[in-house]
Amino acid sequence: MPAVVQEHGTGQVLMLAWMDDEALHRTLTTGRATYWSRSRNSYWVKGETSGHAQHVKSVAIDCDGDTLLITVEQTGAACHTGNHTCFFTPLEVAG
Amino acid sequence: MPAVVQEHGTGQVLMLAWMDDEALHRTLTTGRATYWSRSRNSYWVKGETSGHAQHVKSVAIDCDGDTLLITVEQTGAACHTGNHTCFFTPLEVAG
Repeated sequence: MPAVVQEHGTGQVLMLAWMDDEALHRTLTTGRATYWSRSRNSYWVKGETSGHAQHVKSVAIDCDGDTLLITVEQTGAACHTGNHTCFFTPLEVAG
Repeated sequence: MPAVVQEHGTGQVLMLAWMDDEALHRTLTTGRATYWSRSRNSYWVKGETSGHAQHVKSVAIDCDGDTLLITVEQTGAACHTGNHTCFFTPLEVAG
């Protein structure tokens, strides 16, 4: 299921990642954000190779039980491009 | 694609909804958050029946081009349960 990742303190939305039950279990028990990579078919601990780890402050599940909201303390950049957030490209909204 | 909906001003993450190209187009041109309902197979303008509309302040697309971040001014509750946000159920994180 999709996991919205929000920075603790600033409230900035950093990225969207994916979790299955096992990734959620690992995240809740270790306090380190662990996701499921749909492209690589494997679990990944955020920052394990990049150093840009996410220390989990809180996790909430939504009313339908199919989306997670994770608040984290982000070390370095959340985005693989080096941007702090993955949402750095604005689209134009009418008036 | 998934659309993370964040409240302008408070920074609170309200909900996750889904958009296809047409829903995004309608949202950008009208300034009213318009989603694709996967269960009903139809577009819906948020608040059209409930009155709990979302006036769109900004839209950003992520680095992969497959997730949206929408900031809105929320009228009333975002969640169909009456909660302001859909993410009102915390899970316990170790340590």
